[in-house]
Amino acid sequence: MTRTSQHLTSEEQYAQLLDRYDTFLFDCDGVIWTGPKLVPGITKVLDLLRSRGKNILFVTNNAKKSREMYKKAFDGFGIQASVEEIFGSAYASAVYLAKILNFPKDKRVYVIGEEGIEHELKSLGVQFAGGTDPEDRVFVPSGDYSSINPDPSIGAVLCGFDAYVNYKKYAKAHTYIMNNPGCEFILTNADATYPAGGAFYPGSGSMSAPLRYSTKKTPTIIGKPHKHMMDTIMAAHHFDPTRTIMIGDNLETDILFGINSNIATLLVMTGVTNESHLSGENKSDTVPDYIVASMGDFAILNDKE
Amino acid sequence: MTRTSQHLTSEEQYAQLLDRYDTFLFDCDGVIWTGPKLVPGITKVLDLLRSRGKNILFVTNNAKKSREMYKKAFDGFGIQASVEEIFGSAYASAVYLAKILNFPKDKRVYVIGEEGIEHELKSLGVQFAGGTDPEDRVFVPSGDYSSINPDPSIGAVLCGFDAYVNYKKYAKAHTYIMNNPGCEFILTNADATYPAGGAFYPGSGSMSAPLRYSTKKTPTIIGKPHKHMMDTIMAAHHFDPTRTIMIGDNLETDILFGINSNIATLLVMTGVTNESHLSGENKSDTVPDYIVASMGDFAILNDKE
Repeated sequence: MTRTSQHLTSEEQYAQLLDRYDTFLFDCDGVIWTGPKLVPGITKVLDLLRSRGKNILFVTNNAKKSREMYKKAFDGFGIQASVEEIFGSAYASAVYLAKILNFPKDKRVYVIGEEGIEHELKSLGVQFAGGTDPEDRVFVPSGDYSSINPDPSIGAVLCGFDAYVNYKKYAKAHTYIMNNPGCEFILTNADATYPAGGAFYPGSGSMSAPLRYSTKKTPTIIGKPHKHMMDTIMAAHHFDPTRTIMIGDNLETDILFGINSNIATLLVMTGVTNESHLSGENKSDTVPDYIVASMGDFAILNDKE
Repeated sequence: MTRTSQHLTSEEQYAQLLDRYDTFLFDCDGVIWTGPKLVPGITKVLDLLRSRGKNILFVTNNAKKSREMYKKAFDGFGIQASVEEIFGSAYASAVYLAKILNFPKDKRVYVIGEEGIEHELKSLGVQFAGGTDPEDRVFVPSGDYSSINPDPSIGAVLCGFDAYVNYKKYAKAHTYIMNNPGCEFILTNADATYPAGGAFYPGSGSMSAPLRYSTKKTPTIIGKPHKHMMDTIMAAHHFDPTRTIMIGDNLETDILFGINSNIATLLVMTGVTNESHLSGENKSDTVPDYIVASMGDFAILNDKE
C-alpha cells in the first residue's frame, strides 16, 4: 500500500490537527526559524498551543549546543522555552552514556565535538577527554605520530560536530576504537550536511566519516531518525504516542524519526524539503502523514480566537 | 573455480619465477622496507633483478610524496632507483588531470593534500589552490562560514593524505563539488589506514570520507587497486603484461591491482597481510598467484651466482 500525505491548507484542517494531538515535537531550524530569521507567525502558533494546554518539546540534532545554550537561541527570538522542553543530540548522547550504558565512572569519553557536548557530559557526571582541550586543537606535522598513544582510560569515542576537527583527533579516536577492548563508538547524529546562511556545509555525520571508514566499525547513532533520541525524550516525559506528532522540515531525519517512533508526522516546506522530494524521480521513500506550507499558517486559528 | 596460490619456498621455485617475468612492479612499504627498516636481503634481490636485465618499477599509493621526494627514501636506504621508475598516487593523479582529463589551463584544482601533490601538479603545469597554503591550514571558529565562498575557478577537488586537514578545507571542497558545474572529485587513493611505527592510523581514503558523505558523489579513485594507476604506468613504459608481475603486501590494494590489470601477482608476508587473511572465516576473496614469506628470500639465488 502506498502511503499518501494529507496536505493541510484550510483553517478547518489546521483546527482538526490541533484537536487530534496533545504533544507536539518540533524540529527547530527550518520549522521555527530558518537561520537567523523566525518563521512568520510561529510565535503566535506556539502561544496558541500553550494556551490550549498542549505539550511542546523541541527535538534537534544540533550537536554543537547544550540544552542551556540552545535555550539562549529561543530567548534571542523571544520564544518561550524551558531547558526541560529541549532535547538535543548532545544531551541525548550524554543520557545514552550515563543512563543506558551506565558508563563506568573511572572511564573517560574521548570527544570529537565542542562545548555543548562537554556541558551535557559534565551535567551527568561523565568524564571526558579531547573536546575543546587546546592540546587536541592543533595540527601535528605529517608523519609525527608521537602524540598519538594508547590510553586505556578511554571507554568510548563520541563524535559530533567539531569545527576544530583535525588529524590528531582522528588518529587518537581511531587508536582508542581499535585498541581499547569494548570501546564504544557513538555519533551524536549522522546528518550529512549542516545548513548555514542559505548554503550547506559538511555536518556531524560527515565529521565522523573518517572513523567509520578507517575502523570499519558501525557506530551507535543517537540523533534523529534513530530511536535513542526518542528513548531520551520518553525517559523524561510521559505522553500518549497515539496523540503525539513530530513536526519537521527534513524527511530523512525528522519525518523518519516520527515514523520510526510510531507517532504521527507533519512535514513543513519552510526548510530543506521542496516539491522535487515529494513527487517525480527524486521522490523520497519517506512519506509524512501531513504536509503544510509553514507551521506559521496555523496562526490563522489564533487570529480567530 | 576457486583460485589457489602457489607458495614459493624453494630455490627452484624462486628461479622459475624470475625466469617467467621480465617486469617487476613493487609496492614499497611492507615489501622493500617496513617503516624505517629495510627487508633483509632485498637490496641483493633488486641487484639480482637488475643484473638479469629485468625492468623494475615501484608503485606506491603514498600520496604525501612526489616521485622526487620518494626517491630520497630509496637513497636513504641505499637502494638504486630513478624517478622514472617510481609511480606514486600523487604523480598518477597529476597525470590523470593533465593528460587524461586535459584539465583546462585557466582552471584550478583544489587540493586537500601536502607538498608531494603540489610538486606533481606543478611539474605538469596544473594550477591549484589549497594544499599547503597557510590560509587553509587554519581552524575557523564554529559557525563562521565567512571564509567559505564559491570560487568558479576551481574545476576539480583532489583529495589525498593531509595531516593539516580541517573544517575550512572540507567546507571549501564541499562547496566547489556541489556548486561548480562539472567539478571533478578525485582521490589519490582510498586506503583506509596508513601504517606507521607498527600501528595503523587513518589513511587517505579516510581523509576524503567526509566529502563522499556530505556530497553523496562518487569520486574517481586513482591509486591501487584502480586502473588509473596502471594507465599512468603504461603511458610511460612499454611492457608485455603476460610477463609482468605485481609484488605487494596488501591483498586489497596491491594484489587486487594486479588482478584488475590482468598481470600476475605475488603476495609477500612482510607487511599488512597475515595467515588469518589467507584461510578461515576472515579469508580474503582476493587470491594472489604466488605467495612468498619475504621478497628477501630470493637473495638465495644471488648467493649462488
